[in-house]
Amino acid sequence: MAEEAWGRWGRDDERGALNYIGVPEVLHATRLVKEGKVMSLAQPLSPETPVPGHRGPMQHFMQRDGGDYAAGGKRPGGFQFAEDVVVMALQFGTHIDALCHAWHDDKLYNGFSSNGTRSTTRATRCGIEKMGPIVGRGVLLNVLGDSGGALAKGTPVTQARLEAASAQAGVTIQRGDIVLVRTGWIETMLHDPHYYDGEPGIDVEAGRWLADAGVAVIGSDNFAVEHIPFPQGSVFPVHQLVIRGYGIALLEGLVLHELAATGVAEFLFVAAPLPFVGGTGSPLVPLAIL
Amino acid sequence: MAEEAWGRWGRDDERGALNYIGVPEVLHATRLVKEGKVMSLAQPLSPETPVPGHRGPMQHFMQRDGGDYAAGGKRPGGFQFAEDVVVMALQFGTHIDALCHAWHDDKLYNGFSSNGTRSTTRATRCGIEKMGPIVGRGVLLNVLGDSGGALAKGTPVTQARLEAASAQAGVTIQRGDIVLVRTGWIETMLHDPHYYDGEPGIDVEAGRWLADAGVAVIGSDNFAVEHIPFPQGSVFPVHQLVIRGYGIALLEGLVLHELAATGVAEFLFVAAPLPFVGGTGSPLVPLAIL
Amino acid sequence: MAEEAWGRWGRDDERGALNYIGVPEVLHATRLVKEGKVMSLAQPLSPETPVPGHRGPMQHFMQRDGGDYAAGGKRPGGFQFAEDVVVMALQFGTHIDALCHAWHDDKLYNGFSSNGTRSTTRATRCGIEKMGPIVGRGVLLNVLGDSGGALAKGTPVTQARLEAASAQAGVTIQRGDIVLVRTGWIETMLHDPHYYDGEPGIDVEAGRWLADAGVAVIGSDNFAVEHIPFPQGSVFPVHQLVIRGYGIALLEGLVLHELAATGVAEFLFVAAPLPFVGGTGSPLVPLAIL
Amino acid sequence: MAEEAWGRWGRDDERGALNYIGVPEVLHATRLVKEGKVMSLAQPLSPETPVPGHRGPMQHFMQRDGGDYAAGGKRPGGFQFAEDVVVMALQFGTHIDALCHAWHDDKLYNGFSSNGTRSTTRATRCGIEKMGPIVGRGVLLNVLGDSGGALAKGTPVTQARLEAASAQAGVTIQRGDIVLVRTGWIETMLHDPHYYDGEPGIDVEAGRWLADAGVAVIGSDNFAVEHIPFPQGSVFPVHQLVIRGYGIALLEGLVLHELAATGVAEFLFVAAPLPFVGGTGSPLVPLAIL
Repeated sequence: MAEEAWGRWGRDDERGALNYIGVPEVLHATRLVKEGKVMSLAQPLSPETPVPGHRGPMQHFMQRDGGDYAAGGKRPGGFQFAEDVVVMALQFGTHIDALCHAWHDDKLYNGFSSNGTRSTTRATRCGIEKMGPIVGRGVLLNVLGDSGGALAKGTPVTQARLEAASAQAGVTIQRGDIVLVRTGWIETMLHDPHYYDGEPGIDVEAGRWLADAGVAVIGSDNFAVEHIPFPQGSVFPVHQLVIRGYGIALLEGLVLHELAATGVAEFLFVAAPLPFVGGTGSPLVPLAIL
Repeated sequence: MAEEAWGRWGRDDERGALNYIGVPEVLHATRLVKEGKVMSLAQPLSPETPVPGHRGPMQHFMQRDGGDYAAGGKRPGGFQFAEDVVVMALQFGTHIDALCHAWHDDKLYNGFSSNGTRSTTRATRCGIEKMGPIVGRGVLLNVLGDSGGALAKGTPVTQARLEAASAQAGVTIQRGDIVLVRTGWIETMLHDPHYYDGEPGIDVEAGRWLADAGVAVIGSDNFAVEHIPFPQGSVFPVHQLVIRGYGIALLEGLVLHELAATGVAEFLFVAAPLPFVGGTGSPLVPLAIL
Repeated sequence: MAEEAWGRWGRDDERGALNYIGVPEVLHATRLVKEGKVMSLAQPLSPETPVPGHRGPMQHFMQRDGGDYAAGGKRPGGFQFAEDVVVMALQFGTHIDALCHAWHDDKLYNGFSSNGTRSTTRATRCGIEKMGPIVGRGVLLNVLGDSGGALAKGTPVTQARLEAASAQAGVTIQRGDIVLVRTGWIETMLHDPHYYDGEPGIDVEAGRWLADAGVAVIGSDNFAVEHIPFPQGSVFPVHQLVIRGYGIALLEGLVLHELAATGVAEFLFVAAPLPFVGGTGSPLVPLAIL
Repeated sequence: MAEEAWGRWGRDDERGALNYIGVPEVLHATRLVKEGKVMSLAQPLSPETPVPGHRGPMQHFMQRDGGDYAAGGKRPGGFQFAEDVVVMALQFGTHIDALCHAWHDDKLYNGFSSNGTRSTTRATRCGIEKMGPIVGRGVLLNVLGDSGGALAKGTPVTQARLEAASAQAGVTIQRGDIVLVRTGWIETMLHDPHYYDGEPGIDVEAGRWLADAGVAVIGSDNFAVEHIPFPQGSVFPVHQLVIRGYGIALLEGLVLHELAATGVAEFLFVAAPLPFVGGTGSPLVPLAIL
């Protein structure tokens, strides 16, 4: 049973490892800004954004647009406007998983019953609206292959590899860090039909190592943070361990190559999930401020 | 014709007044952080979030949830998860209007034809994905009534009132600022059935004054920034002037009372619209980092 | 326990009382056509169609339209077209409830477990796709008040009243009939804000009487067939008895006044629910062919 | 210019060739019922139902289900129920095209401007709600290949082939008929990834021949009635001619092999599009009553 962090922040806690970020961590992180450069780590969102096979693509509809006026629509007082609607999964594009997203044995992080997540109520515990904004030190760990190219599908990113990347970057993982692991998967595979067939990503040991170091969030430039195929006999073991056991949210679908190209390894990281009440995640735009 | 800022950042520019924010403005803003306190200025998002009469409410559906497992759903490898989908207008809850959202005479900001915004293409110019993240100095202008209560419906917030609020806060509006005007409307009316019937807000003169000062974004704790009813004979005149003429995005539906309670008037402001390709706006979570 | 018709058509049956309609009933019904007149009993469907408070209204979006072409859209080979998308509850407008729509004690009609109806699977038993088309003898029972006006909210339509209406119409309810009960509710209240606050409709005794007579479907010109408020201590008792116990589908939201004006009491009835796999109901267009 | 039937039923007519069906045609059709057999010609509708590449698949969400109760949901008065919502294109599965669906030169059937079809208004002319139910004589024309197998992609079904099929069936096409052309495409290709790459179907000459014979509706067991690829230099020429010129609605996605297996060539045909106000088409369940 992975219940490592249950009760650590009280029996009613629904924010998990984000509690590691307090005033000192925020202040420290804002002090990292040297260049005044703001970088988005998010993918654009459109009906062409890839989705796994069991989800429908985003749909995006205009409710009023320039075509209305071209076809003779009224413009009271001269005013014209356009508006639109999307149909969209919350685990879409660059997004973060809420702590209610993954679990086992019918218990979420901190022991909440998964029976609280239903069609009628949505998530009554650990919904994305409980997460709050994420502002802290971001750390980029570059774990590309020896030749500098993307890791191959299924490659486990181990603790040793993370330690090596950390050493190479000259940073030590600290409590409250937002750790971003760059595998190269998105930059090479996002528009490939096999994008969702598997991916390189951290393994259970690496996940536990990050979790024990007290990281607040783990992110990666792939669709599920962990390597797929999974180790024999397990299904999303990193999700099970890290989200449920440690209360650590996963940040998926990051675009990291431009950030990597700057050579900067630590930065002010800011991201804010949309507070969908009872939602299991949210698309968001993580920012690295250098 | 209000074409004040057309061409100011080149004929192909689609970001408008956000161009006022450069490296010095970002660095200056990050230096404002003293307390290490992060505040969300966003409303929660749910099917209960108010919408104007011509739009449908948000819908939020579970695609997989705890109920599935309670009813006997398979859990391969022990893994359980939940996921969900929303149907949502992009001008929803706390959101920002893209520069393609409002115009007149068939021309958007910078002279782009509104014919580029259609059912099939969505906005080909000035869509929300062109805006990029917003990181700069936030300034809160408190324009509550003399008694400290919310302004009444229809009350115009004039230049004089903004100047007084600015003086009282001890800040001078500067180029690149994100100016947030607190009228008290949301904190008193959000759950009132008459919320959308009208609102206090800035008038055209005040909008022009802010625009001429070079602000990057104007926000308010109401649904449309400007006062409604409009002055006789005009329809959304501030939208027309500020968005189309000056290329200034409007930030609507802000929750400002907790920020106001801190007494802090300037702060690091961070917000990042979701980059919907061709979208007319985006819900977002503006942050004040104090 | 109301399990009256369980097993009557085999343990795997998912069609219930529609099994009463066989070749003789279809042939008899087609022979009723005398005038060659076709009448729709359905409401128009639009975002303005009333919905109960816990459901969102229908949304209807154009994906391509005349505005696109007016704004300069390409027309290869001269061809122009329009297409659209709806977001719609299946219990919407004039619709029929599938046998999986209502139950108690975790068992559907014929004893199927309600655990088969889940977010991931939708209804695995008694979904609307199992119902098939409905072609048989339609009978109109007019139960308006003594003065010929609509029944008041909450009025129970009793067995006695149905018998009187039947006698007045000169028809005897027979096995396989589709019985349509006209209360006047829709024609007077559909566009009233109190439309969903209650309704006149059949009571449990009347429902049982129709069921024991072997009717295939019960329909009415209200939103839930049965009278609301319910009798003290019960919630949708007619739904529970008739759908679950007898396997009789309910047809709701009918428009009956034009049919009533013809004075014809029996006719060829044709309706075909859309075969949504695992759906709980379907909007449809019931036809009376006279 | 194809304006063959414009004005034939008055300048305001929006029903086109359906006007050919009057009392005698309905009476004649109902007299064709001999066996009391009812056959659905519709596909089941689900997220797996194929859609062309430019449309999203249907999405189908439960709003309340058995999983809710299994997870502890309240059941006041013992009552339990399930309900659901779909997101669905109106040109989906087995469906009929409204007369506003296809046109050229900015004019719909009967000369109505296509400017009336916009994001805000949907179709103000020739929307699907204007069509009404379709009840008349159905005629099945079997145009399979010589070996009895499905026609190959792109095969034009000519007038000669229709005449031969008609002769073989022993029926003469008459005014007001609903003509269903069986090519074998759906029964062999529906679940093939190349289903939408092309199809056999009627050519322009055959379409004109049917139209001049006064048919009310043309249907087929493919996705667009006409053969694809189109003749050199034309795009959907049958749609342009038949829908716009003659006011004949097209019925697409029919399932015809079971009907064909009966050997019955003429039958009572009943179908009723859902009356979406301003819609461009509707899924429906066409019935052959033998």
